[in-house]
This record gives sequence, structure tokens and C-alpha cells, in this order.
Amino acid sequence: MSTPSSPTLGIGMVGYAFMGRAHSQAWHNAGSFFDTPLAPRLAAVAGRNEAAAAETARRFGWASVETDWRRMLDRDDIDVIDICTPGDTHAEIAVAALQAGKHVLCEKPLANSVAEAESMVEAANIAQGQGIQSMVGFTYRRVPAIAYARRLVEEGRLGRIRHVRGHYLQDWLTDPASPLTWRLQKERAGSGALGDIGAHIVDLAQFVTGEQLVGVAARTETFVRERPVSGTSSVTSLGGAAAADAAVQLGAVTVDDAAIFLSQLTGGALAVFEATRFATGRKNAIRLEINGTRGSIAFDFEDMNVLHVYDADAPARDAGFTRVLVTEDTHPYVAAWWPPGHGLGYEHSFTHQAVDFLTALADGTPPRPSFADGLQVQRVLSAVEASAERSGSWTSIAGASAEAGVC
Amino acid sequence: MSTPSSPTLGIGMVGYAFMGRAHSQAWHNAGSFFDTPLAPRLAAVAGRNEAAAAETARRFGWASVETDWRRMLDRDDIDVIDICTPGDTHAEIAVAALQAGKHVLCEKPLANSVAEAESMVEAANIAQGQGIQSMVGFTYRRVPAIAYARRLVEEGRLGRIRHVRGHYLQDWLTDPASPLTWRLQKERAGSGALGDIGAHIVDLAQFVTGEQLVGVAARTETFVRERPVSGTSSVTSLGGAAAADAAVQLGAVTVDDAAIFLSQLTGGALAVFEATRFATGRKNAIRLEINGTRGSIAFDFEDMNVLHVYDADAPARDAGFTRVLVTEDTHPYVAAWWPPGHGLGYEHSFTHQAVDFLTALADGTPPRPSFADGLQVQRVLSAVEASAERSGSWTSIAGASAEAGVC
Amino acid sequence: MSTPSSPTLGIGMVGYAFMGRAHSQAWHNAGSFFDTPLAPRLAAVAGRNEAAAAETARRFGWASVETDWRRMLDRDDIDVIDICTPGDTHAEIAVAALQAGKHVLCEKPLANSVAEAESMVEAANIAQGQGIQSMVGFTYRRVPAIAYARRLVEEGRLGRIRHVRGHYLQDWLTDPASPLTWRLQKERAGSGALGDIGAHIVDLAQFVTGEQLVGVAARTETFVRERPVSGTSSVTSLGGAAAADAAVQLGAVTVDDAAIFLSQLTGGALAVFEATRFATGRKNAIRLEINGTRGSIAFDFEDMNVLHVYDADAPARDAGFTRVLVTEDTHPYVAAWWPPGHGLGYEHSFTHQAVDFLTALADGTPPRPSFADGLQVQRVLSAVEASAERSGSWTSIAGASAEAGVC
Amino acid sequence: MSTPSSPTLGIGMVGYAFMGRAHSQAWHNAGSFFDTPLAPRLAAVAGRNEAAAAETARRFGWASVETDWRRMLDRDDIDVIDICTPGDTHAEIAVAALQAGKHVLCEKPLANSVAEAESMVEAANIAQGQGIQSMVGFTYRRVPAIAYARRLVEEGRLGRIRHVRGHYLQDWLTDPASPLTWRLQKERAGSGALGDIGAHIVDLAQFVTGEQLVGVAARTETFVRERPVSGTSSVTSLGGAAAADAAVQLGAVTVDDAAIFLSQLTGGALAVFEATRFATGRKNAIRLEINGTRGSIAFDFEDMNVLHVYDADAPARDAGFTRVLVTEDTHPYVAAWWPPGHGLGYEHSFTHQAVDFLTALADGTPPRPSFADGLQVQRVLSAVEASAERSGSWTSIAGASAEAGVC
Repeated sequence: MSTPSSPTLGIGMVGYAFMGRAHSQAWHNAGSFFDTPLAPRLAAVAGRNEAAAAETARRFGWASVETDWRRMLDRDDIDVIDICTPGDTHAEIAVAALQAGKHVLCEKPLANSVAEAESMVEAANIAQGQGIQSMVGFTYRRVPAIAYARRLVEEGRLGRIRHVRGHYLQDWLTDPASPLTWRLQKERAGSGALGDIGAHIVDLAQFVTGEQLVGVAARTETFVRERPVSGTSSVTSLGGAAAADAAVQLGAVTVDDAAIFLSQLTGGALAVFEATRFATGRKNAIRLEINGTRGSIAFDFEDMNVLHVYDADAPARDAGFTRVLVTEDTHPYVAAWWPPGHGLGYEHSFTHQAVDFLTALADGTPPRPSFADGLQVQRVLSAVEASAERSGSWTSIAGASAEAGVC
Repeated sequence: MSTPSSPTLGIGMVGYAFMGRAHSQAWHNAGSFFDTPLAPRLAAVAGRNEAAAAETARRFGWASVETDWRRMLDRDDIDVIDICTPGDTHAEIAVAALQAGKHVLCEKPLANSVAEAESMVEAANIAQGQGIQSMVGFTYRRVPAIAYARRLVEEGRLGRIRHVRGHYLQDWLTDPASPLTWRLQKERAGSGALGDIGAHIVDLAQFVTGEQLVGVAARTETFVRERPVSGTSSVTSLGGAAAADAAVQLGAVTVDDAAIFLSQLTGGALAVFEATRFATGRKNAIRLEINGTRGSIAFDFEDMNVLHVYDADAPARDAGFTRVLVTEDTHPYVAAWWPPGHGLGYEHSFTHQAVDFLTALADGTPPRPSFADGLQVQRVLSAVEASAERSGSWTSIAGASAEAGVC
Repeated sequence: MSTPSSPTLGIGMVGYAFMGRAHSQAWHNAGSFFDTPLAPRLAAVAGRNEAAAAETARRFGWASVETDWRRMLDRDDIDVIDICTPGDTHAEIAVAALQAGKHVLCEKPLANSVAEAESMVEAANIAQGQGIQSMVGFTYRRVPAIAYARRLVEEGRLGRIRHVRGHYLQDWLTDPASPLTWRLQKERAGSGALGDIGAHIVDLAQFVTGEQLVGVAARTETFVRERPVSGTSSVTSLGGAAAADAAVQLGAVTVDDAAIFLSQLTGGALAVFEATRFATGRKNAIRLEINGTRGSIAFDFEDMNVLHVYDADAPARDAGFTRVLVTEDTHPYVAAWWPPGHGLGYEHSFTHQAVDFLTALADGTPPRPSFADGLQVQRVLSAVEASAERSGSWTSIAGASAEAGVC
Repeated sequence: MSTPSSPTLGIGMVGYAFMGRAHSQAWHNAGSFFDTPLAPRLAAVAGRNEAAAAETARRFGWASVETDWRRMLDRDDIDVIDICTPGDTHAEIAVAALQAGKHVLCEKPLANSVAEAESMVEAANIAQGQGIQSMVGFTYRRVPAIAYARRLVEEGRLGRIRHVRGHYLQDWLTDPASPLTWRLQKERAGSGALGDIGAHIVDLAQFVTGEQLVGVAARTETFVRERPVSGTSSVTSLGGAAAADAAVQLGAVTVDDAAIFLSQLTGGALAVFEATRFATGRKNAIRLEINGTRGSIAFDFEDMNVLHVYDADAPARDAGFTRVLVTEDTHPYVAAWWPPGHGLGYEHSFTHQAVDFLTALADGTPPRPSFADGLQVQRVLSAVEASAERSGSWTSIAGASAEAGVC
């Protein structure tokens, strides 16, 4: 938590749906479990639907409600703009906020296009010269098992990386009656599985290995091309429910249902990625396996408190994947929570993100993943789309280097 | 959460260590995620160490601090006494609170002896006549996978129960240098692994099956009989750290390190229980397997979002244990949280407990597990100790009946 | 295999059902994969049902058929009597064979009573003075993962043993229409789950730990007390199929369906055993978990090529159960078979048993597990029955010592 | 087994190393466990190294030895030529054998080039007109769990296929000191991981789905480009051991160490394949996951007796991957072996292959996978190589159709 003398920091959050709830909870309890150098104050939540924003304010203790996020930029009691809206609005809000001297935490993907992302990086670079920080919300970096995996790689425990496998498997679109929500519309979401969940595994693969993707050969598919336009969305489900009426109107799905791509990393490793909402039976299977000359790691978010680690230096007789229950106080972030064996859940990573962000602001060090990190992921996504449009031709990714991508 | 017009309910919590943190977080976020008919207000935290209590108050938003829990009984703004202290204090606090007209939520085990537990039940019964409710904190009932298992049994999906296996396996005492904390002292803790963790599996087995244990044959062991008396305790570890100085003083461990017992249930099933702090490599392995004529369930808290379910009605060719990821909105408690595949953690069950307690208070229905349920578990623990003292002789449990034990 | 100059050894097998097939295959292929100092020759198979015995002979290459096992004792071309019949015949055949100067390999349990087993040990001791060897068929010792576990204990990798958990879980009697085969009749089988499968886990626990059980507190149960008397048995199923006719005759099941017992080992460890044919969904789950001060092992025969090993000397951050795929050429028995990752199956342990037996005969060293080892297991089973009859009272096991039980 | 009156069939096997041992065991025990309409007679084993061939003959009961496989074509007592040599010899032997009127069972990959494979198919087609049959040895089709998966797809239990993931992961080349065996030389092996193990997962994916790959985008890599030329090979390891002398001579590795490729199936599903000998910690991880609109299956050969099956028709509350232990007598091939829960091992699939081949010969029906099936796989491998050479450009596969590929 903040110490008794911690200065406070006013947070203004834009958006109040799935991500808004997760961020609210994080600002709410970061100081309860961690010693943060700055005490977050839940100053305002902004949303066009005033009633819904007010409901979020009441549930999570936001002190005020704004129906126009621009109002928050004028408020002196707000130091941070926390962007939890769909990707088509990120660039406008983030750039304006940075120009108004507000620190920015922006949900992923950073933007819906490389051009937008570049404008955001430009604004971030200028702002940083004035001590204004920015960060993009690849929260899965803060799952303790992932942060532990990153440490193992840093310590050289995997040796030279040979293979990377990243999967993000969901199945909530398997039902053709699942409605046409904003996540299935290119103008709102930018892309489908690729940007929504593929972005995470690209970031994770680069973060844990400390390397970057140099190019891709990709294939995408939209299995169900029309879906019911009516239907309600939900704060706790990804897809919402279709309307029950018989004469349902269909609209075009304009994003990918699944994206698969081959890649190679700056260090020469082969890599395979798969992002899909059609992996029947897989609910939120973020899987990462990395094989190196000295060892391997394997992770699955459906068993998020575990990292499987293989040590190739062990005698063959005794070697095998060790199921490390990542709940010891020597594991990243864990000491603040519960005793060994008492696992964490999905939203804890958002608390870790809030804590890391607050710490970076207090230290004046640029937080990671930066907007530049987010832009680099955007370039990978863009290359995937370009490759898929050209029948999977190999498409290089601009600016890949072995140094970048690691915080 | 509470609705805008929900009446508030003042909570006074006694104790601020491991359980105090878990309860604080629960009162803190119950209304954020659930629609509770009463809005908890964190009125006061009591603790003899004022600084520590104040620190808890600051972190979790308790409005005031008391150094004597008796002061809370006089306060009109406090409606509920939440007891998070070691077992030797439960009876005194709970009885006084009930007599003062406060609802009581009491951590498990209900007490350190059957006699104390009986006095608490007596007080609870009198209080209930005046609309004052009481509940004992067997929170693992509120793990969604466990609540789902209970529903499967209720629906008859397991048929007639033949076998029950309950394990609670930890390993934090394996190191003989682990210090002699209050949990290893009979006068404070009542018993060792038996009461601390064995109580949970007895409750879970009875809760999920809807049956009771009729008798036990038991064996207990204290593997390490002396431990360093100095050492510090910790809010996030069970054992604390031993003092580093060489001339460490040793004291006697006066509780069991491990307890194993055979049993039989009211419906005739055979049952085996094992509670230990010496199961090297098992951190918080609360395991429950139940085999019935129509199916089976298996649970392990180290993978707490999963229930393995076997359906014996399926054709042999297609039968097997189904790994149900208990994160669907049709699973108990889950709809309030996140989309499928986004798992919950240890402390969520405390939130569920708070919600269920608030709901029961609003409805005026006696919450479960009741003090009587806690007493019944205490009788089982007492029978285990009696059997172990008589070389494992079969010891009947007073008052076991097939009807009780189910909420 | 046998080397070109290996002397041959004539085998005479009594019985041809489930165990007869497994033993036939073992004699058949031991020399194909291993370098055995003696070449087994499949001289004769004996069975009262001549057609069935002849069928076995034809399938597996037995050179001749006898309808009376006594005839084999007179044949000079037969050096080994391999007993694969139900337990009620073991003593008579084994004692006669040993007295006739034949080496004996006898299926488990050694006998149906302690008295019979004692007579067999007496005969074995006398025979051994004349260079005639005997062995009891606890084949699961020869599963590579189990033999590897034994080596880890011998190397001290588990330190001092604190807990032993042995389960043998099957479910083939869950259906009350499953017929009343010989395995359910006390006069043939001696006991039910206890002797048939419980014997294995007692032997495994003692073998792997190198310790013995000092006493037991037990409970047994016969859940289904009458079953159809008609019905056919099968060579590949344990239970056979019930007759389809409506007016089925019922007979009494005279053995236990399940047995559970607590124990303590010579070194002080607590132990729990469970043998049952009613664990719905568990098909052949032979499970052994051993927790020691320095590490733990866990095994499940349903995943027989794997041993889970915990090393408590590893830093807490990196510790966990390592899933060792026991298919390396440095694992016991494995080098003779296939490359790493190419698993073995159920019957391979019988081949290993044949190889070990042939090697011991060639070396003139008494093979293990000896008849004395079998007798000791019989004493445990007898103590279990005695305890169960006296409501679970603690029953000591004669002659337990820390030295015995290890081959 | 063969029935008493089964006609015999003379087998002549070419090669005696890893595959030779597996095939020998299969011919050896097919009749012991199965009722085969033809009784295989182990007539001759051929190998240039006479001593080694003779050793194989002695161990497995081959009646004679030939040092030139052509001699076997002249022998009337030989009806089947079983080809277990490296891929560069397959075409010559198979075509000659078929022309000589011998049935042929040929190990995979069918050949080292599409042209060779085409010549073999041509010969096979001509031979079939004369009642001479041929088959290629994709044995993993005969793992019971795979055959069961195929049945589920045939029954429509998976619905329309959306995703296929095929992995064949090994790690025996991770050590740069592992020697340059024939498997690493293009002129002998044709390709590296691609043809040796990638061929299997291509065949499995097509076999289980009943669909074919329509094209690929691929990337291959040789991580270690020079290896010690000396060193011994081994019958039970894939790589052998490097020579210990210091002044080791290095030679060029001329095949791929790993191959990854994207694909799409005739029914529209996206597919990803990965074949590697550098997946540290994975020993023989043949993994297949298939997601369809109605369900999914997942398989891993490291746990070969298990198939994980997801039924999307189940209510969300009760759905999950069911771990089917494929050891019931209603599972393919299993009834011939052991009771439920008694798993099979690697070599059992070769026995199943022998049985299926014998059955097809007796019935006069063309066995599957046919040489044409093998050619089709060869075309996929060829397309992978072509794509990899052109930086992953999409490469169509000639003749893919939804009807083919299913036996």
C-alpha cells in the first residue's frame, strides 16, 4: 500500500466495461496489498452512458462521473488517464491526454493501425521529455508465472532459444448465433482474434524471450461470415447473447475469427502463433512454450499459477518438466498476497500493473511495456495481415532488433 | 454490489493477520462485484497491537481502530462481529457478541474444544430467537468448484456414495528449523494439522456428500517435537522465519504435525482423511475425491478452478474424468466475475462468504455453515484425538445423522 | 536375449487365463529384447480344460499340454514351475514343485492364508539349500518408474520418510449385475480387493521405502452382497459378463469389495492404504506417493511411464514435482526396449520379471521378492482382516523390521 | 491368433535396426493375441551385415538370413516383403518385390522423393490387378487412441473441423555433439525432422479428419550445421553416441532440424504443423488437436493410452475435456489385450499393423494406408520443402481432395 505519507495520484478512467471493471479493482486494492510510493485516488470515471458510468463509480468508489473524457483533461485533481475503451478511440484520447500533461495507461492493442500507434509514440516521446509517462496494458506480463519465466530466460536458464510456440485459444464464437458485437467490426476493433488476443501472445513471446519477431507468414480465416446484429453485450462475457426473436437480422463479420502465423526471432528461433475464437473447449488458453538449448518453459493461462520448467542440465534420468506452483514469496509479485499454494486469479495482474505503473511514476523511470513496445506489436499484427492478404508470403517486420522488447 | 438504496451494515473485525487481510478484502469488494442487499461498512478493526491494527485499517479502509474488542460490542454503528483471531479466543468473543445482539461470523475451527463449541451453539440458538445470526467460516465451501460439486451430488449425479477421500496436504513444517509459532501450541491452536486444516476437509466431505461421519479410527504424529521458540511471524506465510542467531532456544511442539483417519459415512461409504504439514512438495493441496454408483468427482485446490467429473452413465468407450473449468457463468458465484477461462484465486471465496452472509442477514434466514455445523466438525476432531490416544480404536461420533451437514 | 551359447531352461506353466497370457508373452519375448543368461523354453502349459490349455499352447508356442500339473513335476525337460492359478491352489502346487526340485515362480498373493504361506516359505527355505529358487510375482516392482523410485529412495533422495499413500483403485464391480466370479468367493480368492490388489500396494510401499508396516487399523466393506451366479468369465476382463436371462440366480459375495487401512512404517512414517473395486472411473489406478524430508515421489499406473519427483533441496522458487518420463536408457529395464518417449505397456513388467528370474537362477542368487516377502505381505493382509473384524482396532504385524522387504 | 486351420504366410524382412525390431516383435506376437486369418511365418531377415542379421534372426525367431534382399524375391516360401530400411532404398526394393509378386509392407516415409513415390504407386497399382497388395507403415494410425479419434470424427462428433494442430516434438539433437548419423544425411534420409517425424503428423491429421492439406507455407531450419562424423549408432536410441576422442571430425548436416508449416484443409480448417528434434524436454511428443464445431480431441503420444475429448453439445456447466483412458474392450484393438486400465506401449501399434495387414490380405481388400496415401504425404513434404526454399510462400499440393486419405 501507500505508506501513510504517500502522495496521492488522481486517476481518471475512460470506459467502464470488462476492462473498466478490472482496472477499477486494481486501483481499488493495489494499496491494500502492496507498498506503493503513490496512493491512487479514484477521481473520475468517464463514459457516454452516464447511468452505466455512475453505476461503476458507485460499485468501485470512483469519486465522480464524466460523460465526456475531455473534461478530465481539464481537471487538476486528475494525474493519470486510464484508457479502457475499444481500440478505435485509443489514439485520440491518449494523444490529447499526453498533450494535456496527463500520464497515460492505455489498454491493448495500442491502436487499430500502425499509423495511429506511431502518432501515439510520437506524443509519448514528447511528453516523456516533460516527465509525463505512458504505458500500454499487456497485463499478462504481470502474471507471476510469466514474470518468473522472463527471469529464467534472463538468468540464461534456457540457453539459446530454438522454438517459441504461442497460442491464445478461445471458443466463444463457435456458435454461429453469437451476436455481432463491436469486437467483430473492423472499424471498432481493428481486427478480430489477431488484435484482441494475438497481440497478447506476440507481446508475451517477445517479452519472455527478450527477442523480436523478424517476419511472418500468416493465414487468417473468418469461419462465420454473418451474425445476428441485435443482441446485448455483457460485462462478464465476451460475446453477449443473441436476440431470441426469429426474424433476426444478419450483419457481416468484418474481422478475422482466427489467425495463424509462422515467424522467426532475432536470435534465430522458429516460432508459431495461433490466435482463435474457434478452439472448441479452450476458454482462455494463453499458451507459451519456449525451448532453448539449456531448458524449456511451458505455460497455460487455464492453469495460471503454474509454470512448467525443464532443465536440460539435469541428468537424463532425473530430467523432466517441473510443475512449479508459482505461489512462493520468492516469485514475482507473490509475497504481497497469500501463503504458498494459495493461488491468484485473473484480475491480480491488473493490480500488479497498477503497482508497477505507480512505482515507475514515483521513480520517474519510463514504465514498460511502453507505447513503443505497443507500436512494435502493432507492426507485427500489421505484417500478419499483409502476409495473409498475399497468401502467406513472408513479410518482414520493420525495425526488429534483439535489444528491444524487454522491460 | 449493494443497490443504491441498500441499507448499510457495520462490520467490526477482530484480528488483522492472515485471516484479517482475507476478510478485509472480502468486505471491501463484495459490493463491487455482487448485488448485495446490504452494503457492508468497514466500521472498526480491533487488535491489541494498535499500530498493526491501524496499519490494517489504513490499507483496507477500516474507519476506526479498537484495542479492545469489547469496545466494539458497545458501538451502535457495528452490527456484525467478524472473528479472525486464533481459536482459543473464539468462544469468549462470539458468546459476548451474540449476547450483545451482534451477528457473528467466526473463523474456523469454531473453538478449541467441544465444550467451548457447545457453549457457542447455545448462545447462537438463543440469539437466533432474537433475529441475531451466526456463521462459521468454512470458506472452501464457496470455491466455485466445490459448490458445483455439491450441486452435482444434490442432483443425484453421483448416485449412492461409496468412497470419500479427503486430503489437506501442506509442507511448511518439513524444515525442523521452522519456528514454534502459535499454530504449534496446543493452548492457542487447540490442535495442529488436525484442527487447522483437517477441519476443512471434514467439513468439505460432509458438505459435498450431504452426509456425516459416524466414527473414526485415527493416528496422529508429531514428527519434530522441538522447535526454535524465537522467530518472527508473517502475514503472508504460515510459519514465519526462524531467528538467525546460533544459540537458539527450543520449545516443545504440543500439537500434531499430521493426522490420518478412517471413517464411514451415514450412507455407508468408506472414507479416508489425511491432514499434514509434512507432505513435501504439496503446498495447499486440499483434495477431495468422491466415488458414487453413478459418477465421481475429484478436486485439488492447487488447481482450484477445475473440477474433474466422471459420469458412469456414459458408454464405457466415451467415459472418463471430464476436466470442467469452473469459470462459466452457470457455475456458482462465477457470473459476477470474469468471462470463461479467467480463473479466480484464493481470496475470492471470502468474498463469496461475505455475500452469502449479507444475503442471509437480509433474508433473515440462518446462514450455513452454522455454529451447529461447526460443533459437529469439532466433535469429529475430538473423536480423532480420542481414537489416536487409544491406538486407533474406532470412536463413534455423537449425533451423526444423514440429514445434517448440508446447507 | 540369451546369448548363442545360453543354456536353455524348461518352463512349465500352470494356468492359462489372464496371468497365463501375461506370463506366456514374457517367456516368449524376454530373450528377444534382453540378454538373458538362460534361454527359456516354453515346455508345457497345464490346465484342467485341455482345449483351453491347447489354445494357449498354440497361441504362445508352448510345446506341450498337460491336464494335470503334477505331470510336469516328473518331466526332466521342465526346470521351472510357473504358477498362474487362483490363490487357493498356490501352496499345494508350490510345495510339491519345490520338493520335486523345480524352481518356482508363483503369482501373488502368495497364498490365501498365513498358514499356507508359512508352509511355502518352509518349503522354499529347504529347497534353497539345494539350489532351488523361488519367487513371488509382485510384478509392479518391475515397472521402470517404480524401480526408479526405489533407486531414488536408496540414494537418499527422499531423506527420511514421513508419509506413504498407497491406492489401488478399480471400478469393475460398481455394476451390481456384474457376476459372481471366483474372485468374489472367499474359498477361491481368499479375500477380495484386499488380497487381489491391496497386496500389490502393500508390497510396493514396502519395496520402495525399504521399510515395513508395523501395524494396521482397518475397515473393509462389501457394498453389494449378492450377485448373479451365472455369467461367463473372460481372459481380457476382470469381471466377465452377467447372463442375460431374466430369472438370474443370486449368490453371496463372500469377500470384501474395498479395504482401507492406516498404518505406520518401521521408520515412523504414517501410511494410508486403500484397495477398492468401487472407485468409479478409476480403472487400474495403482497410486503411490511417498513424502520424505528431502523429497517426494508420486506414481499412478494409469500413466505408468511417468514418475513425479519432488526435490526439496531445490530453491523454493524453482521446486516442484518433476514429471520424469521414465523412458531413458538410464532408467531401469528401459535400455532394452525403445528410444526415449516410446512408452512401455502393462505386460512389459512380466518380461522384466522373467529376465530377473532367469538372471537370478543363472547367478544362483535368491531372487526377490522371495516367498518370505510374500509371507510378510500375507501377514499384513491378515492383520487388516483381523483389525476390520474388531472395528478397526490397531493390530500389530508380527516380525516387522526395517531391514526386510527390500530386494 | 491364427485359427488352427489358418494358412501361413511367409514374411521376409529387409533391415533389422530400430524398425526391424519393432516389426519382428509384431510378426512374433500378432497371432498370440489376435485371431488372424493368416498365420505369419518369420521366413527370413535380410541385411548386408550378416552377423547383425543373424543376431536379429536368433532373437526373434527368423528362420533364415539373407545378405541380399533380392534373394528373398526368388523364394517361394516368402509371400510378403517387409521393408524396414532407410528411405533411399524403399523404391528399388518395393518395386522389385511387387514385380516379383510379393505383397509389400513398406516403412514410412514411402520414399525420399515424389518421383520415387510415384514409381512405387505405379508398381503397386499394377500389382494390385494381380491380387498383390501393398501398404505403407504409418503405424501411429493404429494407436488405439488415434483409431478412436478417427471413429469420433466419422460419427460426426466433432462436427465441421475448424482447427488442426499437429506436433511431433523430440529433443535428441539438442546436444551439438550428437553424431552425424544417416538420419542427418539428405542422400540417405531424404529430409530431416520433416520426413522422419513430420510425415507422421501429416498422415495423422489427414487420417483422423478424413480431409487433406491443400497447401502449405513453411519454414525449416538447421540449427546445428556440422556434427561429428564418427560415432556409433544404436538399436534403441535415435542418435547414437559421439566418439569420445578429442580430434573429432565434423561433417555437414544436410537435412532440416525442424520444420514448421501452416496449412488449410480441404474442408476449410486452418492447420499448423511442427516437426522438430530440438524441442528440449519433449521426447516423442506426437500431439494432435482437432477443434470442430461440435467438439474437439487432443492427443499426446507421451501419454499414449489417453484421448482427451470435448463435447460441445454438453451444457456449458458440465462441459470440459474428458480424459478417456483408451483401454476399454470397446476401443479399437484393445479387446485383444488386457483389462481396462492396463495400458499398451509403443510397439503394440506394430502388432495392430501386422494384424490389419494380414486381415486385408486374407480378405483381398487393399490395405490402407496405401502407397497412394504415402505418395500424397510425400507431396505434402515436397510442398513444405518448396515453400521453405521460397521464404514460406504458399505452395499448393497437387491433387488434394476431401475424399482421399481415409481408410
